[in-house]
Amino acid sequence: MDKVYNFSAGPAMMPADVIKKAQAELVDWNGLGTSVMEVSHRGKPFLEIAAQSEKDLRDLLSIPDNYHVLFMHGGARGQFAAVPLNLLGDATTADYMDGGFWAHSAVEEASKYCQPNAVDITCERDGKRAILPANQWPLSDDAAFVHFCPNETIDGIEIRDLPVTDKPIIADMSSVILSRQIDVSKYGVIYAGAQKNIGPAGLTIVIVRDDLLGQAKQILPSILDYTVAVDKESMFNTPPTFAWYLAGEVFKWLKSIGGVAEIQKRNEVKAKLLYDAIDHSDFYQNNVHPDNRSAMNVPFQLKNPELDELFLKEADAAGLRALKGHRAVGGMRASIYNAMPYEGVEALVRFMAEFEKKHA
Amino acid sequence: MDKVYNFSAGPAMMPADVIKKAQAELVDWNGLGTSVMEVSHRGKPFLEIAAQSEKDLRDLLSIPDNYHVLFMHGGARGQFAAVPLNLLGDATTADYMDGGFWAHSAVEEASKYCQPNAVDITCERDGKRAILPANQWPLSDDAAFVHFCPNETIDGIEIRDLPVTDKPIIADMSSVILSRQIDVSKYGVIYAGAQKNIGPAGLTIVIVRDDLLGQAKQILPSILDYTVAVDKESMFNTPPTFAWYLAGEVFKWLKSIGGVAEIQKRNEVKAKLLYDAIDHSDFYQNNVHPDNRSAMNVPFQLKNPELDELFLKEADAAGLRALKGHRAVGGMRASIYNAMPYEGVEALVRFMAEFEKKHA
Repeated sequence: MDKVYNFSAGPAMMPADVIKKAQAELVDWNGLGTSVMEVSHRGKPFLEIAAQSEKDLRDLLSIPDNYHVLFMHGGARGQFAAVPLNLLGDATTADYMDGGFWAHSAVEEASKYCQPNAVDITCERDGKRAILPANQWPLSDDAAFVHFCPNETIDGIEIRDLPVTDKPIIADMSSVILSRQIDVSKYGVIYAGAQKNIGPAGLTIVIVRDDLLGQAKQILPSILDYTVAVDKESMFNTPPTFAWYLAGEVFKWLKSIGGVAEIQKRNEVKAKLLYDAIDHSDFYQNNVHPDNRSAMNVPFQLKNPELDELFLKEADAAGLRALKGHRAVGGMRASIYNAMPYEGVEALVRFMAEFEKKHA
Repeated sequence: MDKVYNFSAGPAMMPADVIKKAQAELVDWNGLGTSVMEVSHRGKPFLEIAAQSEKDLRDLLSIPDNYHVLFMHGGARGQFAAVPLNLLGDATTADYMDGGFWAHSAVEEASKYCQPNAVDITCERDGKRAILPANQWPLSDDAAFVHFCPNETIDGIEIRDLPVTDKPIIADMSSVILSRQIDVSKYGVIYAGAQKNIGPAGLTIVIVRDDLLGQAKQILPSILDYTVAVDKESMFNTPPTFAWYLAGEVFKWLKSIGGVAEIQKRNEVKAKLLYDAIDHSDFYQNNVHPDNRSAMNVPFQLKNPELDELFLKEADAAGLRALKGHRAVGGMRASIYNAMPYEGVEALVRFMAEFEKKHA
């Protein structure tokens, strides 16, 4: 078999150089004679990782000084509870823009703590799935914040608009963080599960604006409390240290190749290659309007779904892994996060053309 | 330098064979051409890890069929909230036996959700810190459950008694799980952060009796909900897959050396060696009564604390790492979990004797 390319939606492919470095130093890290996963989070060697990784993330996203960077447990689903419990204050509602599976899941969890104003922002445009322009999103007056999910991993939908509001904007960036440039100062809170563009599963990054702290509900479990995490420098409980270390290595790698501006260019080129291949074929299709196609997660269908199994089997045999679509939608999905090299998408496109030639 | 021995309280030393195996297969796991941390938690290869690791843990602890085994996020501090929120039902109080730092921290978190009946079960015996016999623990009639922490990592206190009650017994076994044989059927819930005897930080094991499910409070964040975790087979959100894989490898290792009965013998021998060295010296001391000395965490003090710094420096130079006591208590602490070989404790005892000879 030639090289293997892993299109998993998450836990996802990590930069090959990072995995290789982690392997080389797994048994003896930093000359300490122990693994990085075996050292105390409160010892100087790990504290250096913690400080450097935060600094690098701040550099990569140009995070302003009035924002805190937290390394938390619990995944994005933990944040679905953490966001309302930290940010509702005295309000009883918040606006939840619903553009797909994950935004919708956030609404369900928020319903435990308030009456979310859930707004379906999807629409049809030219026969394709699309998202309404942000100036048409109906927001409520008494919302504490506006929550949305800029990239829907399962639906393959990306929202480049921001809500038009002066309320705090809260974004679930799990599958899009660090893939393109953003202006952090426009957000109240950005959160992201690590397992797509940052590192292994089990770590969650939260970027929170200073003035939003200090209004947590009394019932909020302390491990989800932003103010506690700020006060304890993300070490209220033992953090997932190995995942944190790897996140730090991913940040270093991203800086080394030119940062977010450079990776955004590469991501756009990769996505164009794949969407063009789909659009120029009568054999494959993607049902999302070009305005809202995700550059990270590319779902596509074989027009003859009876060939799905065979496609996946032959792709796997060709070293193209994890192309099966999410069980909620079926079909195929190629997740092409930061770590996916251009060559991987090229190999996929080549395979797709060959498969079409054989089976069309 | 000779071999390095890492006495960190957590994240702690892992079995050398496990770390070596993880290193060997970090880049190409199972012949898939990807790292185990890069594969989907829902794919067959990872589901096999999930099933095998649960089976091995069930074997190791002889977990009865009416108990569920959960692999969760959030650490033991997450469980401090999860326990009352899952188990209080209509009750407004629960008994919390307070024998040290961690049991006390559990009380603080529980106070958000009920009026915990917190009972100081520490006492002085023969001039040493000890724990009252369990038949003297004052329990309340209306408690939903009785919570205790059988091993206090910071205080170096181990409680081998069980509460005398027919209420569900809830145990924070973070620093003692798998170190000695227990009768799981006597407990309602056992939970443990992984980073001492199981694997890397970021994974939490919960063993919960079937009849205790289904009474969660509405305000409980779903990621901490035992019933959700049971229904979704610990995959409601993306689990910390790499930590789970390593936990599975630790379980295999423990089975391969003879299981919990064998490791208990080894742990008792290791602990005796170290406590004897302390007791037979006028230079070192431990202030816990032998009845309640922890076999996992051995705090000790130099009678002349001015030598603390030098002790730590010379120990580190001799490859004996992370012996500094917790900042809350000072002095030294040697954590000698399952993964610490006899030779490590021998090396420590030898170093302590030499240091005493030089500086007494």
